[in-house]
Amino acid sequence: MRTLNPVELIVRKRDGGRLAGGEIEALIASFLAGEVLDYQLSAFLMACFFRGLDRDETSALTHAMLHSGKVLELRSVRGPKIDKHSTGGVGDKISLCLAPLVAACGVAAPMIAGRGLGHTGGTLDKLEAIPGFRVALDARAFERVVRSAGAAIVGQTAELAPADRRIYALRDVTGTVECIPLIVASILSKKLAIGADGLVLDVKVGRGAFMKDAKQARALCRELVEVGRRAGRKVVALLTDMHSPIGRTIGNALETREAIDVLKNAGPPDTRELTLALGVEMLLLAGAAKTRGAARAALEAKLANGDALARFRKMVELQGGDVRAVDDPARLPRAKVRLPVTAKRSGVVVGIDALELGLAGVELGAGRTRADQAVDPGAGIEIARGVGERVRQGEIVAHLAGTSRAKVREQVDRVQAAFEIGKHPVKRKLVLERID
Amino acid sequence: MRTLNPVELIVRKRDGGRLAGGEIEALIASFLAGEVLDYQLSAFLMACFFRGLDRDETSALTHAMLHSGKVLELRSVRGPKIDKHSTGGVGDKISLCLAPLVAACGVAAPMIAGRGLGHTGGTLDKLEAIPGFRVALDARAFERVVRSAGAAIVGQTAELAPADRRIYALRDVTGTVECIPLIVASILSKKLAIGADGLVLDVKVGRGAFMKDAKQARALCRELVEVGRRAGRKVVALLTDMHSPIGRTIGNALETREAIDVLKNAGPPDTRELTLALGVEMLLLAGAAKTRGAARAALEAKLANGDALARFRKMVELQGGDVRAVDDPARLPRAKVRLPVTAKRSGVVVGIDALELGLAGVELGAGRTRADQAVDPGAGIEIARGVGERVRQGEIVAHLAGTSRAKVREQVDRVQAAFEIGKHPVKRKLVLERID
Repeated sequence: MRTLNPVELIVRKRDGGRLAGGEIEALIASFLAGEVLDYQLSAFLMACFFRGLDRDETSALTHAMLHSGKVLELRSVRGPKIDKHSTGGVGDKISLCLAPLVAACGVAAPMIAGRGLGHTGGTLDKLEAIPGFRVALDARAFERVVRSAGAAIVGQTAELAPADRRIYALRDVTGTVECIPLIVASILSKKLAIGADGLVLDVKVGRGAFMKDAKQARALCRELVEVGRRAGRKVVALLTDMHSPIGRTIGNALETREAIDVLKNAGPPDTRELTLALGVEMLLLAGAAKTRGAARAALEAKLANGDALARFRKMVELQGGDVRAVDDPARLPRAKVRLPVTAKRSGVVVGIDALELGLAGVELGAGRTRADQAVDPGAGIEIARGVGERVRQGEIVAHLAGTSRAKVREQVDRVQAAFEIGKHPVKRKLVLERID
Repeated sequence: MRTLNPVELIVRKRDGGRLAGGEIEALIASFLAGEVLDYQLSAFLMACFFRGLDRDETSALTHAMLHSGKVLELRSVRGPKIDKHSTGGVGDKISLCLAPLVAACGVAAPMIAGRGLGHTGGTLDKLEAIPGFRVALDARAFERVVRSAGAAIVGQTAELAPADRRIYALRDVTGTVECIPLIVASILSKKLAIGADGLVLDVKVGRGAFMKDAKQARALCRELVEVGRRAGRKVVALLTDMHSPIGRTIGNALETREAIDVLKNAGPPDTRELTLALGVEMLLLAGAAKTRGAARAALEAKLANGDALARFRKMVELQGGDVRAVDDPARLPRAKVRLPVTAKRSGVVVGIDALELGLAGVELGAGRTRADQAVDPGAGIEIARGVGERVRQGEIVAHLAGTSRAKVREQVDRVQAAFEIGKHPVKRKLVLERID
């Protein structure tokens, strides 16, 4: 193949042209080899923002990023393997309940997860609230945990899709994050590297989501499903509501506790419901259930009989975590300061602004604004009155937890204002659409 | 001022927003300080390609780039000082004739010029065909030459508009060259740094020009004039034809010889005509003539009485060049090999493809494809039959000069094909429009 001219490729994309698959693969390979430089790739990414990539180009980019590192096969894990990915939200602890639950139903759940950034939380931070829990496993250790527990949740290591790590870091500082084909290639290159046969996507839409607008979120779902299929994976996406947070907690140890509650067949109804909805899709994709009803019944049974919790306990143990924190969540880290937030008027909670609660969570110490910041595992928000519940003026609607009294106090008004209190009862619709 | 967030500025421009003057200045200052990185600026430049910059933004960018280095004032030079800039073409040796000519009319001509790149030639390469000629003068030496000779032509030193040098180098490798506001800021930041009161622009349009299309070239003229005026300079632009080369020569020593011919009151009519047209604008801008007729008469007189040539000789001497090459242009470098090109049919030369001749010139050794290449001063093309002239099949229309017989021979067919021979006489219009 003749020498790659990156300027020619940038200009072609800039002027609305198409790149051949081989050109995209050469561009990514040359970038990783240091021949195409950061400032050339960032200009290319910005041209992609304006001109887009068609499905062939997105597939080629995904393929190039996926094959930039190790692609796991998990050959020693028997039976179907299904991963789940959420585009990120506030209070989203679903992976913690879902992976062991589907494992209990005979579907292995090898998951690669991320950290919180900005107003959204991250599954890895939540798991690390369990003392000793290790999210950095190499490929062999990962496979061993999946084989034994049926589920493992790890971070993206340097082995998996290194091109995605480098490109995402560049997008983050060059204003090129919000571009559907680049999002698709980033998500799928990581997810396809983990060795799963199928993937269930939870694409969030609303105030607390990355995508504020349903039309865009739907376009993202469609691309993820199609490009994932071209890569030989079964993919289904649910478009779910992220106007209000999921469940009753925001913050790492608080959310882990809520996830354990769900695994104990309790917990908030919406967290349980979303776990079941995604679990049904995973079981159907895996062929582990014939009907939606059967899938749901199987999942409910494993919550009721303690199998799901046992799988979680096993996963925690194999990933180095202290299982006593699973048996007794009171052992999870707790914040020193806890202050109440009261309702500003009487009525029905019709919405809780997820973005505002996410941002308040960051200020309390539960999240980060830069990738290199540490989080306070005990910090966060507990919601006392959820969407649809009646409240009287002055009654407690939430508690805020953190390390510094002054910092916690600073967030009280913001959280109070985030509770929208109306006159008439509402019912929240969690799953808005299913796309396959 | 609060800390600059470059990502916020990139995203705002990307989404079609405006940047305040202070934000643009901070962005450029932070880039030069190494706080905003190359890959961030290249993403910003690509966003500018798609979203443009309005006149305020372009003015702020020009100002920031201008003040990134030394801004000369040339206080010791009496009287008006006018610079000329060409957007670059094929056979464009006008600066060499024009600077000494207007100097002879009492208008100082401090000029900053460039090197050839791709199919276009560069004034600095042409001057360096004169043995010993130095284009790298510091600010004091430059002022001394302008004071004594009335004219000096130098390259952009590290002192002048360093932001432009760095940004242009980045644009060149990131596909962000073809963007009018960025072109305007690049040209004007250099030109305003040189200490001239006014600027005459020769914006070329056609096959051999950077702008192939008159509408775009006109838009560039308009922006250059307006942004230059906002910076307190008098600016006028001529839109001139670059479908065919200017004059009869392409190549460094060949063009210098042609420029000397014009200064000796001879030379090809079109080179002389374009020199006079731009000279009239410079004299009027300087207030050195009251009418176009008076300006033209003054310029013609200085060509006829030898004053213009004497100014050129003085400038060459003060810039370290061998004046014997001015007195006897046969002393200029000559190529070893010289081959004829003949007419493929009989008729009238109705056009000579300037792009093809420029590219053939590069292959002969007269130009470069990368900024770090050396040029062969003697190489190039001499046109024997210009636009509008009759020719018979088999008659010589051009000579090609170079170092290697094989390489020269390779260009014969290409140059032959570049001569468009028709049936009916044509008259070339050199100056298409005047914009002020």
